[in-house]
Amino acid sequence: MDELERFSVYFRNAMRSDVGLLDKITQYVLRRKGKQIRPILVLLSAKACGEVSETTFRGAALVELLHTATLVHDDVVDESTRRRGAFSINALWKNKVSVLFGDFLLSRGLLMSLDHRDYQLLHVMSDAVRRMSEGELLQIEKSRKLDIDEETYLRIISDKTASLISACTKSGAVSATSDEDRIESMRIFGERLGLAFQIRDDLFDYGARDVGKPLGIDIQERKMTLPLIHALRSASASERRGILRVVGNRTRSRADLRRIATFVEAEGGLRYARDLMLRFAEEARRSLHILPDSRSRTSLQHLVDYVVGRSY
Amino acid sequence: MDELERFSVYFRNAMRSDVGLLDKITQYVLRRKGKQIRPILVLLSAKACGEVSETTFRGAALVELLHTATLVHDDVVDESTRRRGAFSINALWKNKVSVLFGDFLLSRGLLMSLDHRDYQLLHVMSDAVRRMSEGELLQIEKSRKLDIDEETYLRIISDKTASLISACTKSGAVSATSDEDRIESMRIFGERLGLAFQIRDDLFDYGARDVGKPLGIDIQERKMTLPLIHALRSASASERRGILRVVGNRTRSRADLRRIATFVEAEGGLRYARDLMLRFAEEARRSLHILPDSRSRTSLQHLVDYVVGRSY
Repeated sequence: MDELERFSVYFRNAMRSDVGLLDKITQYVLRRKGKQIRPILVLLSAKACGEVSETTFRGAALVELLHTATLVHDDVVDESTRRRGAFSINALWKNKVSVLFGDFLLSRGLLMSLDHRDYQLLHVMSDAVRRMSEGELLQIEKSRKLDIDEETYLRIISDKTASLISACTKSGAVSATSDEDRIESMRIFGERLGLAFQIRDDLFDYGARDVGKPLGIDIQERKMTLPLIHALRSASASERRGILRVVGNRTRSRADLRRIATFVEAEGGLRYARDLMLRFAEEARRSLHILPDSRSRTSLQHLVDYVVGRSY
Repeated sequence: MDELERFSVYFRNAMRSDVGLLDKITQYVLRRKGKQIRPILVLLSAKACGEVSETTFRGAALVELLHTATLVHDDVVDESTRRRGAFSINALWKNKVSVLFGDFLLSRGLLMSLDHRDYQLLHVMSDAVRRMSEGELLQIEKSRKLDIDEETYLRIISDKTASLISACTKSGAVSATSDEDRIESMRIFGERLGLAFQIRDDLFDYGARDVGKPLGIDIQERKMTLPLIHALRSASASERRGILRVVGNRTRSRADLRRIATFVEAEGGLRYARDLMLRFAEEARRSLHILPDSRSRTSLQHLVDYVVGRSY
């Protein structure tokens, strides 16, 4: 993809600094780039809506700067020493330098957008950051009390996951067209794709073999996701009490995890979550209908299939 | 100060959220507010230049949101359990929640400014964030090699300290006037005040009794500041080598610290730094001359005297 290389130039330039230490860390980050899903989403969304512009590339760079800053800060908080098959920034340069590097990336993203008057992009991205932090904090708050209903769950995954994906697709759209209907349909596309993606991720927690995640890590962290939420709603009062006691325990044995998984399956929690995921996927696909037929639109459709199709 | 109360309303509103956990942390932060020097600087600078406006209050709220977010993140990195005479956020709510809370504050500041089209404020503040992270990283890089000359030292303290103070005074100015000369003079005022402030702080490291800082903490952390930089420049080559060996040691005894302090004093490092501080203070005062006489201008002048006057 030729555009992806052009994006890389914007991304690299945005990180430039005459402070030697910063340049060294930047080189390290650039050599270990990830899958670049977010910039690709921005580019595809722009192309599906109209013409790719300079703003598109800056939007793609902005989201990747933001995402990189978040990963660097996350690794500090989680004390992770590995990232993308190599040492994390904090493992090599310590916490203080890592946090400052993340702040530097954020400020460069802001300045790039402000210098070019990309105010709409900035608004879209800032709102995503607000929703991501609110969503994660809501999840932490509610998980402690084990009282998440479906509505709260949907708000959490919408805020913590779908917000950024939706910010990518909307950024691409606003950079390529001023047609409000197209922009809104791309926003909805990202939102629904993000919801489907997160439910799939939560389903994997109940046993899919092709993901690196060990079984039951969400339950270990007392995160209540849709399969369990639905199963608890369907169960009898006494069964519900029994399961909640196990989920709420400080430590849970392998047998406990298996008991919860069996309960969720038996009460139709997996089927229910899968159905909702497929409905969001269908809504995502449908939102693309108003766009003209194009290779980019087809790529976005395939992306939906890929997200929900794996191991189901 | 009546304006300070109006600022508080903007500050509180900017942090509002319907996520219960966020509101709880916000309440905690609001009960333990600091000296609010930054918002006061914004308000005084605006009043000295013209009329305080809604933008002034939003500017004051923006800088305080930014500052609070920075403190919360700093405490995570430094693993500090105390802040402003009470438990730090990370001590009470853990690292993950603290980092998310900081991100939330940043995003709310951004959104507030974007919603009201305060683009100039945003630019001033983003540039300050960039300079602060670059300045601190430059200091970390150079300190390791012990090769800081006066020019590099001035760039470091200008970026890491003066940038934010200057952003406060400039934000106040742009919110109250469109007179470019006044705006520029307030920017210079903040820059020079910030430089004087940081040199004073660095001088305290060589022994002032009325500050909470223990003697020689900078040297302990291998930070080279102006008194030492100047003393090394004045000393003979053999003396320089001897002192650099002590400074560069992994561990330094009380006797080592005393030897360095005596050397710095003997070579005129303290006098030199004090003279430069007073020159910056004078430049700060002079930059206020083009403003009309007012109580706010007088307050700003007193602030300069206060910064350089203490214990000298």
